[in-house]
Amino acid sequence: MARTIVVKVGGGEGISLEHAAESFADLVATGARCVLVHGGSHETNVLSVRLGIPPKTITSPSGNVSRRTDRATLDAFLMAYCGKVNKTLVAMLRARTVDAIGLSGIDGGLWHGERKAAIRSVEHGRTVIVRDDLSGRVTGVDAGLLNLLLDAGRIPVLTPPAITDDGVAINVDADRAAAATAAALGADELLLLSNVPGVLRDPADLASLIGQVGEGGIEDVRNAASGRMKNKVLAAEEALAGGVSRVVIGSARGTDAIELALAGAGTIFEEIWA
Amino acid sequence: MARTIVVKVGGGEGISLEHAAESFADLVATGARCVLVHGGSHETNVLSVRLGIPPKTITSPSGNVSRRTDRATLDAFLMAYCGKVNKTLVAMLRARTVDAIGLSGIDGGLWHGERKAAIRSVEHGRTVIVRDDLSGRVTGVDAGLLNLLLDAGRIPVLTPPAITDDGVAINVDADRAAAATAAALGADELLLLSNVPGVLRDPADLASLIGQVGEGGIEDVRNAASGRMKNKVLAAEEALAGGVSRVVIGSARGTDAIELALAGAGTIFEEIWA
Repeated sequence: MARTIVVKVGGGEGISLEHAAESFADLVATGARCVLVHGGSHETNVLSVRLGIPPKTITSPSGNVSRRTDRATLDAFLMAYCGKVNKTLVAMLRARTVDAIGLSGIDGGLWHGERKAAIRSVEHGRTVIVRDDLSGRVTGVDAGLLNLLLDAGRIPVLTPPAITDDGVAINVDADRAAAATAAALGADELLLLSNVPGVLRDPADLASLIGQVGEGGIEDVRNAASGRMKNKVLAAEEALAGGVSRVVIGSARGTDAIELALAGAGTIFEEIWA
Repeated sequence: MARTIVVKVGGGEGISLEHAAESFADLVATGARCVLVHGGSHETNVLSVRLGIPPKTITSPSGNVSRRTDRATLDAFLMAYCGKVNKTLVAMLRARTVDAIGLSGIDGGLWHGERKAAIRSVEHGRTVIVRDDLSGRVTGVDAGLLNLLLDAGRIPVLTPPAITDDGVAINVDADRAAAATAAALGADELLLLSNVPGVLRDPADLASLIGQVGEGGIEDVRNAASGRMKNKVLAAEEALAGGVSRVVIGSARGTDAIELALAGAGTIFEEIWA
């Protein structure tokens, strides 16, 4: 059977959808069984500002920063991720003869998840409890739906949000959703591509990239990662624990980003240490 | 085999998505093979105004009014139709245990179409040619994709835009797209539900509703329809010509709108005259 590869392309500032489509179309042409997962954080921020609801964040007591997702923000999220970014990407892929089909985690209950009941947030030095946030994490992936489409030659293009058992749309981390998807599909490889080239020991120094993560080296990578990168390392660990053979955290820049990542550009995690 | 029913619920002002979801969930529970098509014109208008790009229209020399769809408007269209309305409806249906899956006409090339090369528009009494409009009409429906999902027990929830062979997203009329979908599926019935109860001889008088459209009566209905209703009558004719047995143009109001339309509330077209 063809290799199964899940590619996540970030939605940060500076990521070109055209480049992502070009690079992913080349991968599809190799005959691999492929799924594309994308983000949309920058589009959501831009839209939120235009709508007069500037993005807000939640800072956990341990210092993790995430998007504050109230009802109005979730609507902007749906519009940016599921509307503009997903459909623009699908159209770009179809223009390149890829039989792409865009789905959110809501559709078909593809990504079911659990909403966080209460979130501790540090505001002006005090810890408060936020109870109405529409965010959570993916607890299950409907691999049957993905395989139904893949077996029919359709290429899924996936985006948050996910959905709870009660039918509530929730903001989930797209890197970890991609990891759960790769694990559910028994994927050979997961690529987590964004606007950084991999895990850097010093974010200001590209030469400090950690290349291969060998046996016992995961603690080292965890410690080197900061900010958003912590989440990608966690996603990589989850994918490996779920049976994915290889994860690369690499750059989404350029029209050959996927080819480069598959060739080993970035930070490579292999099951050797899992 | 179960009856196949395509339901289109309009996106005009005053249409409740909760009511539409409730009514459609009841239909799904009857065991019918169902597809839901929805609009999003009011959401698009609201969003466009908030984004500072107020909606513009094109008036044809014959007096038909349609949305002027430039690039910025298409983005707003994607956000409103494919993002907010589609995903909100799918979540509402899933909350009612319907295994709904939302797709735009772009996804999987479900609705392929042709872009209008040039549109004649009457502006300030002069006829001008608009060449950059991103609108067109559906020329083909991928029934294979819909049947793949329906056979797997998934309920498609469909929305414009459609997509050209070149991968360009185009604004298409959702009533006529629903008609093409019903014809492609060999549907038994098509319901076109909106914020009017059917074809009225006098838009101001609900008692002027045309009930049954008998043999030879189509000219009469065409003449009675004005504005947006002209398009619904055209959609009804196209569906019947495509082999659909019965079309009802009726009201989308209330949680039993679909049940009422199936029972004959509205303007009923039957193949007797096709």
